[in-house]
Amino acid sequence: MHTILAVDIGGTQIRVASFRRGKVDPTKVIKIPTKGPEPVIDRISEAIRECWPQSDQVERIVIALPGPVDPYHGVIYNAPNIPEWRNFPIKAEIEKRFGVETRIGNDANLAALGEWKYGAGQGFQDLIYITVSTGIGGGIISNGRLVIGSRGLASEIGHVTVDPNGPLCGCGKRGHLEAIASGTGITNFVKEQLSLGVDSSLSASDDLNAKIIADAAIAGDRLASHAIERSGNALGNAIASFAHLFNPKIIIIGGGVSLIGDPLFGAIHRSLNRSIMDAIYIKDLTITRASLGDNAGLMGAVVLGHLPPDR
Amino acid sequence: MHTILAVDIGGTQIRVASFRRGKVDPTKVIKIPTKGPEPVIDRISEAIRECWPQSDQVERIVIALPGPVDPYHGVIYNAPNIPEWRNFPIKAEIEKRFGVETRIGNDANLAALGEWKYGAGQGFQDLIYITVSTGIGGGIISNGRLVIGSRGLASEIGHVTVDPNGPLCGCGKRGHLEAIASGTGITNFVKEQLSLGVDSSLSASDDLNAKIIADAAIAGDRLASHAIERSGNALGNAIASFAHLFNPKIIIIGGGVSLIGDPLFGAIHRSLNRSIMDAIYIKDLTITRASLGDNAGLMGAVVLGHLPPDR
Repeated sequence: MHTILAVDIGGTQIRVASFRRGKVDPTKVIKIPTKGPEPVIDRISEAIRECWPQSDQVERIVIALPGPVDPYHGVIYNAPNIPEWRNFPIKAEIEKRFGVETRIGNDANLAALGEWKYGAGQGFQDLIYITVSTGIGGGIISNGRLVIGSRGLASEIGHVTVDPNGPLCGCGKRGHLEAIASGTGITNFVKEQLSLGVDSSLSASDDLNAKIIADAAIAGDRLASHAIERSGNALGNAIASFAHLFNPKIIIIGGGVSLIGDPLFGAIHRSLNRSIMDAIYIKDLTITRASLGDNAGLMGAVVLGHLPPDR
Repeated sequence: MHTILAVDIGGTQIRVASFRRGKVDPTKVIKIPTKGPEPVIDRISEAIRECWPQSDQVERIVIALPGPVDPYHGVIYNAPNIPEWRNFPIKAEIEKRFGVETRIGNDANLAALGEWKYGAGQGFQDLIYITVSTGIGGGIISNGRLVIGSRGLASEIGHVTVDPNGPLCGCGKRGHLEAIASGTGITNFVKEQLSLGVDSSLSASDDLNAKIIADAAIAGDRLASHAIERSGNALGNAIASFAHLFNPKIIIIGGGVSLIGDPLFGAIHRSLNRSIMDAIYIKDLTITRASLGDNAGLMGAVVLGHLPPDR
């Protein structure tokens, strides 16, 4: 037997798990905070060492990274919250330290692989995974392969333009899906409306977030309902474009904001119906919730670890 | 030697050409009008018979079709201008008549294959082809394969939403790329502005088209320039989204409207720069004109004819 070591680097937590080849469940899991006195790469190395199997050979290390990556060369372009990682050759660094082949991927791209092989997308060859939390990311499986593009920067679902006159996105450009439909987009919209004097049970505190807004919507608050509907509209609009471009069989929506459930998914379906050119695109299209939760990235790392070298 | 018979069915003309296996140039070309007294399928069959090689075996017939197709089952869902083709099993019909394996594809999808292997896209593995004429179609090559999706309906580039408050599209939905950026979209915009009393050298005759508008723009007409700029804006906006989703190395723009050249391409580049999340997506992205002209579909049929069965 051989082991795959999967590493998932989040904004607040790093998780390392060891998987026996062919097994779905980790034999060991290590969790450490992302922030600490030592450089992040040293903290990761320490967690990998701690997770290293006693009596089994490590075949491959796979790392899910929170930012744009070049999976061909194993370089992370940049990572939110880890300022020292700009064009950081993490694959080479880990291979130097451990002497084991290392692969990397964007965490949302890998989560798509995880949902595909172990989660809600099992058995489908054309699949889109969208994670809606403070930001929006995702991964696209087309004809049984992850779409990563010429430099590995594809599947950047949060930055398709859904309204050229929409609000500014965190990336600095206008009207991207993330700027409108993410938790941040929902919260910013409510704050803006409150500042314009719109009546609501909500108040513009620093703690305001999409969860609080969703609860207010369920309790009947009109502004809160409008904010959720607006997020679903933007998602449905983007999903119509994705359907036209990729003609998927299933769309899987994960992330904290997806937990809002029916009010959000209802708006998504209505918006999708308004924008889709022909009913044939949605006749046998499933739109469903993700099933792996926080483990999607780790499971996706295992999937990537099992893929042949050319993917 | 074996022959591939390529058939390209356009709105006004059907072309059939025979290609020796491995050769790029047709050994024989037949052209007939699409409309005629007999059913279209009989006219096509007649042209195929006329094109049939005297002394060589036909290995495969490949048909480029003007509408959405199911390439897996060889069915055309519907074709503009050919009302009798609704869910028409053209592959089965041609195989019955000629006893030769037949493949089909959407004409714009096949044109992408043509530009990829014989035209402006040679050597690239991640490519987007967009044809802008009265409508907008295209084809996407991702990681060396045509994106066709679960039912073969993918790469429907003209129907991504670029402005949810934009004009109605020919498909009945609002704000699609085709509704704004196509020749029809450009012409409709100018007619609408003229009806609102906007000053221009143009008049809203039935003959007004994108070519006349482009000429007026070059001659300094402000409304005409605005219409071309608006088309380029929408294209650049959509191309930014495509860059985020597919991270291509090259985008090839063909079709009559692309002949407008610099005024259109300038607007595309400005709009793309406004919408792209990071310069890395466009650093080594080429945006260029198509090179095969009207032959792209026919050449793409040859490419499809040469592909292994699983594509």
